[in-house]
Amino acid sequence: MNQDFLAPDSHITTGKPKPPRVSDAVLDRLASISSGTLTSQLFKRGYRQPVMVGVRPLNARPRPFAGRAFTMRFIPAREDIDTGATVTMEPSPVNLQWVGVEALSEGDVLVIDSRSDVRAASMGDILVSRMAMRGARAVVTDGAFRDGAEIGEMEIPAWCAGITATSRLSFHHVADLQVPVGCAGVAVYPGDVIHGDANNITVIPAHLAEEIADACEAQDDLEQYIAARVRAGDAVWGIFPANEKTKAEYRQWVAAGRPELPTEP
Amino acid sequence: MNQDFLAPDSHITTGKPKPPRVSDAVLDRLASISSGTLTSQLFKRGYRQPVMVGVRPLNARPRPFAGRAFTMRFIPAREDIDTGATVTMEPSPVNLQWVGVEALSEGDVLVIDSRSDVRAASMGDILVSRMAMRGARAVVTDGAFRDGAEIGEMEIPAWCAGITATSRLSFHHVADLQVPVGCAGVAVYPGDVIHGDANNITVIPAHLAEEIADACEAQDDLEQYIAARVRAGDAVWGIFPANEKTKAEYRQWVAAGRPELPTEP
Amino acid sequence: MNQDFLAPDSHITTGKPKPPRVSDAVLDRLASISSGTLTSQLFKRGYRQPVMVGVRPLNARPRPFAGRAFTMRFIPAREDIDTGATVTMEPSPVNLQWVGVEALSEGDVLVIDSRSDVRAASMGDILVSRMAMRGARAVVTDGAFRDGAEIGEMEIPAWCAGITATSRLSFHHVADLQVPVGCAGVAVYPGDVIHGDANNITVIPAHLAEEIADACEAQDDLEQYIAARVRAGDAVWGIFPANEKTKAEYRQWVAAGRPELPTEP
Amino acid sequence: MNQDFLAPDSHITTGKPKPPRVSDAVLDRLASISSGTLTSQLFKRGYRQPVMVGVRPLNARPRPFAGRAFTMRFIPAREDIDTGATVTMEPSPVNLQWVGVEALSEGDVLVIDSRSDVRAASMGDILVSRMAMRGARAVVTDGAFRDGAEIGEMEIPAWCAGITATSRLSFHHVADLQVPVGCAGVAVYPGDVIHGDANNITVIPAHLAEEIADACEAQDDLEQYIAARVRAGDAVWGIFPANEKTKAEYRQWVAAGRPELPTEP
Amino acid sequence: MNQDFLAPDSHITTGKPKPPRVSDAVLDRLASISSGTLTSQLFKRGYRQPVMVGVRPLNARPRPFAGRAFTMRFIPAREDIDTGATVTMEPSPVNLQWVGVEALSEGDVLVIDSRSDVRAASMGDILVSRMAMRGARAVVTDGAFRDGAEIGEMEIPAWCAGITATSRLSFHHVADLQVPVGCAGVAVYPGDVIHGDANNITVIPAHLAEEIADACEAQDDLEQYIAARVRAGDAVWGIFPANEKTKAEYRQWVAAGRPELPTEP
Amino acid sequence: MNQDFLAPDSHITTGKPKPPRVSDAVLDRLASISSGTLTSQLFKRGYRQPVMVGVRPLNARPRPFAGRAFTMRFIPAREDIDTGATVTMEPSPVNLQWVGVEALSEGDVLVIDSRSDVRAASMGDILVSRMAMRGARAVVTDGAFRDGAEIGEMEIPAWCAGITATSRLSFHHVADLQVPVGCAGVAVYPGDVIHGDANNITVIPAHLAEEIADACEAQDDLEQYIAARVRAGDAVWGIFPANEKTKAEYRQWVAAGRPELPTEP
Repeated sequence: MNQDFLAPDSHITTGKPKPPRVSDAVLDRLASISSGTLTSQLFKRGYRQPVMVGVRPLNARPRPFAGRAFTMRFIPAREDIDTGATVTMEPSPVNLQWVGVEALSEGDVLVIDSRSDVRAASMGDILVSRMAMRGARAVVTDGAFRDGAEIGEMEIPAWCAGITATSRLSFHHVADLQVPVGCAGVAVYPGDVIHGDANNITVIPAHLAEEIADACEAQDDLEQYIAARVRAGDAVWGIFPANEKTKAEYRQWVAAGRPELPTEP
Repeated sequence: MNQDFLAPDSHITTGKPKPPRVSDAVLDRLASISSGTLTSQLFKRGYRQPVMVGVRPLNARPRPFAGRAFTMRFIPAREDIDTGATVTMEPSPVNLQWVGVEALSEGDVLVIDSRSDVRAASMGDILVSRMAMRGARAVVTDGAFRDGAEIGEMEIPAWCAGITATSRLSFHHVADLQVPVGCAGVAVYPGDVIHGDANNITVIPAHLAEEIADACEAQDDLEQYIAARVRAGDAVWGIFPANEKTKAEYRQWVAAGRPELPTEP
Repeated sequence: MNQDFLAPDSHITTGKPKPPRVSDAVLDRLASISSGTLTSQLFKRGYRQPVMVGVRPLNARPRPFAGRAFTMRFIPAREDIDTGATVTMEPSPVNLQWVGVEALSEGDVLVIDSRSDVRAASMGDILVSRMAMRGARAVVTDGAFRDGAEIGEMEIPAWCAGITATSRLSFHHVADLQVPVGCAGVAVYPGDVIHGDANNITVIPAHLAEEIADACEAQDDLEQYIAARVRAGDAVWGIFPANEKTKAEYRQWVAAGRPELPTEP
Repeated sequence: MNQDFLAPDSHITTGKPKPPRVSDAVLDRLASISSGTLTSQLFKRGYRQPVMVGVRPLNARPRPFAGRAFTMRFIPAREDIDTGATVTMEPSPVNLQWVGVEALSEGDVLVIDSRSDVRAASMGDILVSRMAMRGARAVVTDGAFRDGAEIGEMEIPAWCAGITATSRLSFHHVADLQVPVGCAGVAVYPGDVIHGDANNITVIPAHLAEEIADACEAQDDLEQYIAARVRAGDAVWGIFPANEKTKAEYRQWVAAGRPELPTEP
Repeated sequence: MNQDFLAPDSHITTGKPKPPRVSDAVLDRLASISSGTLTSQLFKRGYRQPVMVGVRPLNARPRPFAGRAFTMRFIPAREDIDTGATVTMEPSPVNLQWVGVEALSEGDVLVIDSRSDVRAASMGDILVSRMAMRGARAVVTDGAFRDGAEIGEMEIPAWCAGITATSRLSFHHVADLQVPVGCAGVAVYPGDVIHGDANNITVIPAHLAEEIADACEAQDDLEQYIAARVRAGDAVWGIFPANEKTKAEYRQWVAAGRPELPTEP
Repeated sequence: MNQDFLAPDSHITTGKPKPPRVSDAVLDRLASISSGTLTSQLFKRGYRQPVMVGVRPLNARPRPFAGRAFTMRFIPAREDIDTGATVTMEPSPVNLQWVGVEALSEGDVLVIDSRSDVRAASMGDILVSRMAMRGARAVVTDGAFRDGAEIGEMEIPAWCAGITATSRLSFHHVADLQVPVGCAGVAVYPGDVIHGDANNITVIPAHLAEEIADACEAQDDLEQYIAARVRAGDAVWGIFPANEKTKAEYRQWVAAGRPELPTEP
């Protein structure tokens, strides 16, 4: 691919060092953690709103995932710039959406900052299909997808704020790739971990990924015990959150091989 | 449970006598009425908007229900007050959400006035699970639930305006329980009947519960006949609403044992 | 039906000639085209936003359709005008909603301009059922339906912005029928083609219906080939959109009887 | 003026008799009443929201007025219809905005239903200037004006929800004139009284105009006495609203020639 | 005044001890501090959003103030409860708005939680006039005032989100007084300091009032020097915020009697 | 100033050549044109919405201006990044807001893409004061300013969507400078002409600046004649827009030295 046009331009931006790349192993661990546990651990570390607001999955049973953020930024379209001619047949600086899709790597999650504007599509099913072929773990926009029903049938999780067939060219211009963006109210830096389960999309700062995975695995295991205790008829006091007595009982339960707790008659 | 902290404070409020408690028998009758019939009868009595706007069920097939409102009121969180320390392991005045859940009785519906703010969760699955154990008939918030997918799998109907994992502590403070509130645009007084079917949440003033049940049962029965007539090919004039001739035909149909009406070929 | 009251009033309006009636044959062709292809062809002809924003189907698997727009316009209700007395048992100028439903013809789509106000229902299941009996292909409102779950079980596609049992009389007055309206952000002239698939409602100006059908059928066929190529592992460059080489390969594929393309291992 | 094109079209509408024309004398009386008094009297008669929400005057000191509603209805623009060619140099059915302005009579108030869309102007200063020349008492839109600063310098009151220079043709089409409309949340029927003071625009049903004028004049006079009593140091109990004793004192004060009340030291 | 009805009811609420009453002396000091300085000091202590969003002053030149919060809480109106009969001529539990106004003390600020609903007035000019007589320092609502122009002419600062003449009874019910509320997005506890200048309303937790006054007075003084330096032509680096060199120069300037700095030619 | 940190990073962006710099002479001509004329000429060239929506001037009588866009882009803040430490005393990559202000040149207009979020300030009066010292012609944000009253007293035009004292650090992070942005719904490329009059902010693509200036000067002159004719009593037909006869009369009027037209008695 000719990437001549990918030369950086002369704008002024922050020069901060890239965070370390989150490993596939840590991503796999994070993918099996619930969003409620993630946000509890992030809250403890001072992050008040790491969850995207107003996006929902197109898939009937969305697959849990965790991947590295690859960002795409939209600005409003302008009639003389955003014409059909920008949908080029070869790599081109005027067609950054196609460039972005073909630049995705295994383990990436495409995050589109669509300025929460659902009047025109962020993209449609063919590009999403191509992203899945390239190994993307998910795609998230705070705007809308075209072909929502078709995308919802794919295995790749796709999250959005709406569905519309209106051409992206009507209202959106792809301004650049791999810059820090906002998406559905949350800051996303390239390389951050984007996490999805059946409920939400959560953003985990890259430098915290491993620490969060450690803390969440422990919490998730304990909360499964707590949930079972509540289903067995216990009141919440001392159980949720667990006091020392409950924690001891939890350790015994683990030691005993995690026997099924009785359900209240 | 130590309820010392439940002593009333010194604020100024209305002193109006409590309405009579709506009986379980009336609740059961109301649970089987459709929301469309309820609102028609309430409109006749001058109530223009008894239906919550913008809430939806988490359950794929929400169970119809009617219960007595138990209210919980949120105000915005404040950083020095709404910390992890408020999630206590024992009953405490700083943890009114837990107190409220454990104060629910058989037949109650928890109604949360979350100021229509979906940026943070109203509560999560463990508390909802506990509420179901205590006999709550449903839970409604004009905010969001954490663990929406998990709650949607439970039998207890849960209605909300969104799903988010963001900690309640980030944006919500539980200010008090069992006061009159607004929820999704409708006034809710403790003890009012909260009604849900597959479509909506409707609020019925407690003192009207029995009168409404009477009127609605009659209307629902007639409308099933009307719907069948329309499906059989009749135009709406004189059928919907029913004129005297149609009402007579309805009575004959009832007398004849409600035979199936033909469907237009 | 006595239509004396349907005499036109004295207001000032445009006198432009009606567009030609779109034939059933063209409607049938349009019904099988995807909304993404429609909007691409409309964009080429200068139409930037032909898709309704914020409406969704009540049906779990909405049926694709195309029909002729029959419009109904709402204004805010007024307490002395919009009373129960307007729900008449005979055709009447005060009950235009019933008049409208009974005036629908085979192939029509009822489009309700509800000013995007979901506080009260646009209509309920009995009228929708009657519309289906009269041959309506679909019903669309930018407001809410009453009895959404019941309507969602019907075969007729029903699209809306919400569900509420609140009586139409509380907030809506039916002002007139068959005038140009706005619905969910798009202009709809009586006789325009209203198109729905699983994703969207799109409005096609009547005079363009046949031209659009021709152009879209060709594009849809090519895009199925493109989608298959992408699923087979091709990058998007030169494939989507198709350059001359790809178009030639497409023609060969068609000539070869459209054999299945391999999926990447 | 050639009004051939003003012939009514064939759409279906209500045939209800026009209300009697509100006289200039009644308009003049209403113009000097405060909006707070108007809404109190309308509330007593069952009208809950007669005040437009979200509109504000462009004039620094808006002139109080009352006039007869002349309505103009917008729908969304369509690219092939709403072109520069519709701004004709002669009366034409494609240029209803100009037709409407030239159809205004002494005592009218132009009310524009702009669907609360402020993205494009409802009209600009030249048309407003022409309306003033024709004797219009005011102009109200729930959209935006172009040339807001210039209009704000004129004597004619102009109320709107915003200011924008964007051409009306970009987003608005004038669909018809003198039909019932909604404006800023309130139903407006041609001929209704549109009232403005420094605070609000209020809509008074035409048939109630005289009755309301009578009731309001009495209330306004009493409330000026009440306000003076409060400024003199009285508590509100029994004064506002006035009990029998206060009413007697009011009558004595009137009989005494309305002497100035002392202001609390 | 008979306050029998002011007896506390039986609802469940937090029992936390009241904060100490903020003295008039501290209020006076806070009243002369700018909101920008207040929020800087609050941010340093962890308070991210202490400023009400979306409210504006009715007064052309709003007077700076600081006072103790006296809260009034609204819920949605209900047709059978919120009738003209609640506007009583004597103190009554059904007329808490009048009770609240007459309960205000010197130095209070009335804060109305109107659920950000501007469709109906929070109150009108006569009650505001009475509040001023009782020594209230300001009144704030996140809803609307009736008689906005008249209130804007008074000396008492009045802040709101809109102006409407629509009767409070149409949409609002006064539920109680002196409870914690949310107003324009910020938590307000009775007794908190409500601060207003020409720009904003800021809420200062009562227990921090004195500490904040101390810190802000120092910062305000330094920033006046910084502003003068910038107007004299200095670049911001090292001046704003001030480094040690600049702070030393500031102290010299203070010692020199605060001479006027030159303005760049 | 040490600009080492201003080295471009490695993100992918468009490489399109910069448009020619708009000269000061053209800016001066554009500054005296009305926004209504600008948008008419832009509409003729296909630009449908070049006007920012929802921003207003802080100045009581905003000065007309035209300048070259210098852009600043915000994303949501993150608690660990956006701390007080980023308000540095020396040029730094973590303090791009200060860097941007000090990088402004004579004739620039700072345009801040604040994602239309008014919960926190875009900046305050000291930075605006410094911008004025550096020769900036105006500053525009689709968010809010701190110190709005103070900024409104300055000569430099300042436009925004609100006023709040809440610290920028609470919700905004400055992500970069001089990239294409969206502001109040309009695309802004660095170097575009930003135009303001008493009514609006309009964006003119840089390559069209001179052509637009030419066309607008002619239109503005004609429209002043038209406005005078309307004030003299002419109907709009043939005058506005002007037909050939009117244009001839306009030329005669110009030739006659633009005598004052009579005002209708």
